Amino acid sequence: MKGQIIAIGDELISGRIVNTTSSFAASRLFAAGHVIKKITVVGDDPDDIKEALLAGLEESQFLIVSGGLGPTTDDITNESVSRALGLPLERNTQVESQIREMEEELGEHAPEQFKQKLVMLPKGAKVLKPDGHMAGYELKYRDVYMFFLPGVPEQFRLLMVEKVLPRLNELDTTRPYVAQRVFKLFGLQEIEINLRIEALAISGKGVKIGYYPVFPEVHITVTVIGESEPEVLRHLESAAKAIKDEFEEFIVAESDEGSLAATLGGLLETNGLMLAAAESCTGGLLGATLTSVPGSSGWFDRSMVTYSNRAKMELLGVSEATLREFGAVSKQTALEMVKGARERSGCECALAITGIAGPDGGTPDKPVGTVFIALSVNDTELVHRFLFQGDRWQIRRLTVETSLDWLRRFLKYDSVLPGYKPVE
Amino acid sequence: MKGQIIAIGDELISGRIVNTTSSFAASRLFAAGHVIKKITVVGDDPDDIKEALLAGLEESQFLIVSGGLGPTTDDITNESVSRALGLPLERNTQVESQIREMEEELGEHAPEQFKQKLVMLPKGAKVLKPDGHMAGYELKYRDVYMFFLPGVPEQFRLLMVEKVLPRLNELDTTRPYVAQRVFKLFGLQEIEINLRIEALAISGKGVKIGYYPVFPEVHITVTVIGESEPEVLRHLESAAKAIKDEFEEFIVAESDEGSLAATLGGLLETNGLMLAAAESCTGGLLGATLTSVPGSSGWFDRSMVTYSNRAKMELLGVSEATLREFGAVSKQTALEMVKGARERSGCECALAITGIAGPDGGTPDKPVGTVFIALSVNDTELVHRFLFQGDRWQIRRLTVETSLDWLRRFLKYDSVLPGYKPVE
Repeated sequence: MKGQIIAIGDELISGRIVNTTSSFAASRLFAAGHVIKKITVVGDDPDDIKEALLAGLEESQFLIVSGGLGPTTDDITNESVSRALGLPLERNTQVESQIREMEEELGEHAPEQFKQKLVMLPKGAKVLKPDGHMAGYELKYRDVYMFFLPGVPEQFRLLMVEKVLPRLNELDTTRPYVAQRVFKLFGLQEIEINLRIEALAISGKGVKIGYYPVFPEVHITVTVIGESEPEVLRHLESAAKAIKDEFEEFIVAESDEGSLAATLGGLLETNGLMLAAAESCTGGLLGATLTSVPGSSGWFDRSMVTYSNRAKMELLGVSEATLREFGAVSKQTALEMVKGARERSGCECALAITGIAGPDGGTPDKPVGTVFIALSVNDTELVHRFLFQGDRWQIRRLTVETSLDWLRRFLKYDSVLPGYKPVE
Repeated sequence: MKGQIIAIGDELISGRIVNTTSSFAASRLFAAGHVIKKITVVGDDPDDIKEALLAGLEESQFLIVSGGLGPTTDDITNESVSRALGLPLERNTQVESQIREMEEELGEHAPEQFKQKLVMLPKGAKVLKPDGHMAGYELKYRDVYMFFLPGVPEQFRLLMVEKVLPRLNELDTTRPYVAQRVFKLFGLQEIEINLRIEALAISGKGVKIGYYPVFPEVHITVTVIGESEPEVLRHLESAAKAIKDEFEEFIVAESDEGSLAATLGGLLETNGLMLAAAESCTGGLLGATLTSVPGSSGWFDRSMVTYSNRAKMELLGVSEATLREFGAVSKQTALEMVKGARERSGCECALAITGIAGPDGGTPDKPVGTVFIALSVNDTELVHRFLFQGDRWQIRRLTVETSLDWLRRFLKYDSVLPGYKPVE
């Protein structure tokens, strides 16, 4: 079945909030073989909602509509649907008893005006989750299945996964088989990746390759759509193998959920190494990135975030003379930081970062973006100077990614250089 | 003028990439008084692109179209525009000489097939930035001004700000005056905020109030649209004052660029206090959040990210007996962590965090989401237990926000409790 997503909200059309819910729905629908042809965003305006709905009904077999179901005054989806499709609003007893139960549980009473809004749904609406406090409903109009979901991302995602997807899978048994592999690359430009993949001349029925810069990485997707599962999987594996062979060392993760940090964690664990970090300009972002991986306590010991010079001396043993002579942002300081992190933590492995993330603090010798990264693993100690481009956020992200990638390459290939080239 | 945004790309329609560029464009256009009625996303499909273009031309006075302008094989916007509007592709000499200059500068030659794609633009296209390597073009079709921009966020944003906005401002001198204020609140539910604002009965011509949960905050916008600038500003100030008075202590930032961390930094600076942190389950996220603020070295000294028990003992002086008797996630450990952070840093102010972010590691006594936060300022030492709901990412974000907010409240109001209520 072909479908559309309609997202409603002034916060979306005015750009205050990024439309993450439609992307979430699209990705889940796509993975299940449902075809989304269009995503439309309109504001909290009855006429615009009506027009988007009528166009959607004309062009689709199913519609996912999000936003405007809440109790606040800017929530007008139910009224708009009622007007646009000529379906009167009716009191929904399921929602009513649900609210009553919640009130009893909490010992609090919601204001009457809020309850009225939540309880009145367009005629024919079937509540999706009658056992929870999140409404959302299915409404069949002519031949089109419509699903109305709250715009709050957590509620939207839950209903999408638990209710809408299973229902669509049940309604559409003839959908094609879709399989996808994702590779995340760091250290190559999108254009170079594309050129090299074109040269591979990957063929196979229904194979499509996509390129997506996701700062600071480039993600490659291999998607295969077909009728026969074994055939789809065969084409997918063959294309994925060709890409893996071509980009091997640049691949920092091999799935959508995967990440460079998780890949590095796996390598540290396999090698029985514990990692310590010493951070200055990243201010904890290296540690936060590493510990975003569940189970990171198995390979990550500590990070000493030494933002001040005194902290660098006290926590890492950087000498005052080094700081005075070469400055906090220098090869010498980075080396003393990484030595200190190794010695004081007793870890086999350490990374140290010191640099200028901007927007202020740059000098002609050391402009904004100048970052020294030092690595120490067993008997090897290395330091490089980098010059990263971008704003404060980008420089910090590039610094973290480069340091993690360098350690990944070092552990995996014994290569002394990171994929992102240093300036010295 | 009324306009639409059309974003083109399989990565968008399949939900792999969130459509941040359209939000960026919408927010800038909105702020300048241009009206966006619809955002449409379609895939790299000539028919879908054609349909979206023709509908957009029908309904709008201007169109912003992004994506599919690059050299890779999945970039098909130019061909699709040419077909849809019957405009032949013509060699653009500006783009051609631009590429030649770049090649000379870099000493490298781009493959011929890539150059062909970049150089051939629909008849009538006027290149937006003839002096840079980013193309993008304006194309007037009948009475509609169309702007075609690359989908890569950095390039899109640059052209949007430097070229498209000034051009639209020049074309449309009758647009209304728009002014907006943003308040970021933490510690209240959206529904409660809405109810309290309704009770304020804020009036004024053209005043509109919006509510947007942006985890873990709720953002309120006050937007005023009108013909007269002084009148718009008067209504805005009066509504903003009412909201500020009502929510005072819950407001963690008062602008779109503002953040809780920056607000806290300002308070620390005003009070001449330096802050040290001791983090366990947040793994550096507290430090990273604080140092995302430019100039944070003026009030942030260090964070000791003590993920292992040994690190807690060595870096913070937490006693082995405490860890053994009460565990790493306990009131006692949190207190010893905050004491250690104060003593070892010499800072007047410290925050300490220890908890279970999940998904594993929970026990019946201390389920996932259990977090102890301790605060120490001058002679005051406080610790609370929290039970946060959500996934690993949410629990960590809530922990950081709650600890920063607690310190903000303490410094501003001498209040001993954070806005987000502890369980003990």
